[in-house]
Amino acid sequence: MLSDEEKIIQLIDNFTANDFGDFLLNNSTKDFLFIRPSGNPIDALGFIKMRSYGDVSFGYCDVEKIHKLEFLSEHVVMCIFTMRSSFVYKDIQNNDLATITSIIKKINNRWKFSWMHRSSGDSDLSKWNLYL
Amino acid sequence: MLSDEEKIIQLIDNFTANDFGDFLLNNSTKDFLFIRPSGNPIDALGFIKMRSYGDVSFGYCDVEKIHKLEFLSEHVVMCIFTMRSSFVYKDIQNNDLATITSIIKKINNRWKFSWMHRSSGDSDLSKWNLYL
Repeated sequence: MLSDEEKIIQLIDNFTANDFGDFLLNNSTKDFLFIRPSGNPIDALGFIKMRSYGDVSFGYCDVEKIHKLEFLSEHVVMCIFTMRSSFVYKDIQNNDLATITSIIKKINNRWKFSWMHRSSGDSDLSKWNLYL
Repeated sequence: MLSDEEKIIQLIDNFTANDFGDFLLNNSTKDFLFIRPSGNPIDALGFIKMRSYGDVSFGYCDVEKIHKLEFLSEHVVMCIFTMRSSFVYKDIQNNDLATITSIIKKINNRWKFSWMHRSSGDSDLSKWNLYL
């Protein structure tokens, strides 16, 4: 039996290991939005459309480090993590190290993403040593 | 007597209207961090140092739109807003429209920033019409 914290880590691992759109369609709240590095929102269907238009094709994606996992209440968690990913977006190869702020909610006993905000892909993990 | 929601909007307005470092030093939690567009964290003292090194000088900053203000519990709020700002960073003039995901907590009856994640400065507000 996994603890809530273990279930949340599993959710994040599964997010990075799968196609974002398909995964978020089944593992996010109805009002979920993902803030892109530009500051513009996209939802799960938006990711699926982006893939179907051929704008993006994934190589790999993995959680590099979880910086913070904080229970804001019994049913709401904030998790900050950095993920490493390789993908082609509009014919440009990206090798990204990006930080995500996520809000995750327990709904009907299942943890789901409620919000994500992704940085650009040029994070420097050593900068975290100053703080955490 | 302001409502909690009005107090939170005031907090956000005051954040944009003041020097980030000085304001955050007095209006954020002890573990507050601000995720920069790069994905790297900075704290209130980091903003103060950045200004003292002459890296950044502010012109103006204002809240352009609050997209979402959601109580995650009685004492925790998630607020997503876009701010318009003009500043010089490392001798480059920036005119930014940036989206911020913020977590705000009520501590000893005062609302304080607990987390912020800022996008790059090239947001397009019309993209929100698809969702909210």
